Amino acid sequence: MFEFRIIAQDPETGARAGEFVTPHGVVPTPVFMPCGTQATVKTLTPAQLEEAGVRMMLCNAYHLSLRPGADIVSRMGGLHKFANWDRPILTDSGGFQIFSLAELRTITEGGVLFRSHLDGREIFLTPEKCIEIENLLGADIIMILDECTSFPTEREVARAAMERTLGWAGRCKQAHRREDQALFGIVQGSTYPDLRRESADRTAALDFPGIAVGGLSVGEGPDLMAEMIENTLQRLPPNKPRYLMGVGRPEDILSAVEQGIDFFDCVLPTRCGRNGLAFTSQGRVKMRTPARREEHGPVDPGCDCYVCKHFSRGYVRHLLDAGEVLGMTLLSLHNVRHYMTLMEQTRSAIVEGRFRRFLAERRRIPLMAEND
Amino acid sequence: MFEFRIIAQDPETGARAGEFVTPHGVVPTPVFMPCGTQATVKTLTPAQLEEAGVRMMLCNAYHLSLRPGADIVSRMGGLHKFANWDRPILTDSGGFQIFSLAELRTITEGGVLFRSHLDGREIFLTPEKCIEIENLLGADIIMILDECTSFPTEREVARAAMERTLGWAGRCKQAHRREDQALFGIVQGSTYPDLRRESADRTAALDFPGIAVGGLSVGEGPDLMAEMIENTLQRLPPNKPRYLMGVGRPEDILSAVEQGIDFFDCVLPTRCGRNGLAFTSQGRVKMRTPARREEHGPVDPGCDCYVCKHFSRGYVRHLLDAGEVLGMTLLSLHNVRHYMTLMEQTRSAIVEGRFRRFLAERRRIPLMAEND
Repeated sequence: MFEFRIIAQDPETGARAGEFVTPHGVVPTPVFMPCGTQATVKTLTPAQLEEAGVRMMLCNAYHLSLRPGADIVSRMGGLHKFANWDRPILTDSGGFQIFSLAELRTITEGGVLFRSHLDGREIFLTPEKCIEIENLLGADIIMILDECTSFPTEREVARAAMERTLGWAGRCKQAHRREDQALFGIVQGSTYPDLRRESADRTAALDFPGIAVGGLSVGEGPDLMAEMIENTLQRLPPNKPRYLMGVGRPEDILSAVEQGIDFFDCVLPTRCGRNGLAFTSQGRVKMRTPARREEHGPVDPGCDCYVCKHFSRGYVRHLLDAGEVLGMTLLSLHNVRHYMTLMEQTRSAIVEGRFRRFLAERRRIPLMAEND
Repeated sequence: MFEFRIIAQDPETGARAGEFVTPHGVVPTPVFMPCGTQATVKTLTPAQLEEAGVRMMLCNAYHLSLRPGADIVSRMGGLHKFANWDRPILTDSGGFQIFSLAELRTITEGGVLFRSHLDGREIFLTPEKCIEIENLLGADIIMILDECTSFPTEREVARAAMERTLGWAGRCKQAHRREDQALFGIVQGSTYPDLRRESADRTAALDFPGIAVGGLSVGEGPDLMAEMIENTLQRLPPNKPRYLMGVGRPEDILSAVEQGIDFFDCVLPTRCGRNGLAFTSQGRVKMRTPARREEHGPVDPGCDCYVCKHFSRGYVRHLLDAGEVLGMTLLSLHNVRHYMTLMEQTRSAIVEGRFRRFLAERRRIPLMAEND
């Protein structure tokens, strides 16, 4: 029911283009998944997401188990039907959210005791309970419960979290009940190269159909991140998909693709959209500043999205300035399309054997567009 | 450049179906205009509005003159281009907003002195200035500056406001510069039948291409409103379009169509959408209540909109409950489509000579759907 085919391998880097086959269709990789945390990519309809070229969406099992409840989503026909999204979905277990959002956590070998960020209710989450929730939600890819550490973390704390994650990985695998869902393992190990290698080896040994690199993009910076990805990937089987969780900025994504990562997710395109920052082919553009007020051109002259084809920067700026929801919607839509274009171009460059040149061109784009 | 053709006249009531020809296309009447106060129908894209069957949009000259400024909209190519809306637009002068939103108003024969609701800046608005703003914005139909009174209002205050509005009507007509914009007069007179008749006579004498009934739906109730419409319409030329400003609820619209009104606008479909109230073919439905949590069916089984074709009530309820913008967007979209369907069905009923029967059927729909 699941298959990962590598279509092209860049000869000069670790980059590869592939296809991941799921019950809801084939996902071309490398792929970026916009975050639909609460079963909606914030401000956008599924029709707008499809028009923007989104191939796969991420939802959050932790959030959905609290509201509306995994049992309700299940009785409503599962996540795809509930959110009217026929393409593949990945649910994160919520490990990251529990360790960043929730209060009063107590972690034991058995699981994690925490208070809901919504109503303070006490919840004891075990690997088994986590998989039960994800089985109820019904995403195509589901993630094991893992323990994320913050940055920096002492070696012994990092090791303990890694061990716990490995123990939970085995229990998640045991608890998993649905053949139409692929369960991915997660490598931890904080910023310790040897822990990363050990975690990768032992996660690989559990023979998941895909493996994620977790616990990164938490403040360690691009160099440490690249080093940890390197130490992880050298121990993972090349024929299985690799997912870098919570990453990230376009430049971070490209570097990770160069290293051999296949899956990405991040709130950045939609969060920045709501906050007035546009990603463009000429660098980031602050859309709320008065400088945009009378700009006739589109948000990004190099973009083919609905927003760039129909609206001026001046209008988008007016909407944001006036506090109109449509401003957030339009900029989220544009940013999501920017990310999708980035992934499409990246994949073409790999398939056509010109990834290195593409990378060099992209890296010449300034962080901020010049007129900002 | 403008023409109003009456296509069908109901033999039993005052209802008529028509076509209003504008530089941006023909508007079938009776027509309902969703409010795009700040050059956006809140939460919806122009593509979504077109898909919902919206024929004409209302914008507010007062709001747009404060933000982003009429000069900017003009330099950006005018309101149609700015908002990417190719169909007809009507701008309200903002008289109603000045008398309800603005602070520290001082009304003189010359104009009205007030403080902006945004930054407290003092503004002296004259009929001439108002038309200059509307000429800059470039809507197809523009409204004169009028003085609205609240309800109840003493006779002498109502008479003074009516006289002032009539004086301003003449000055607006003098100041108007663009042949591609139709300037509509506004009848005032509060709830005094004889003032309404006098205002209608004297406004009609100014020979505007269309006339509005203003100052209603301000708390006077449906009976007084109907009486004031009756006293106004009996003195207006039958061959010109009549616009009932700020109305309203579906039942109020139908009653006014029965009396012979052609144009309507109201924030109700979008405001209720944002607040979780759905208009349906079975009555209003409160979408936020827990009762909706597991409802598999659409918001309205009798509706053909994007929302009703693709989403369950349970999902829309989840979005509203989770504070997701998409919930407001979906419900606004559905409510706008509900209003458009109402107007399409109303017009067909008039054209096909079965308006009275249609009205009776609609009036059997309960205010609130039974399961609420």
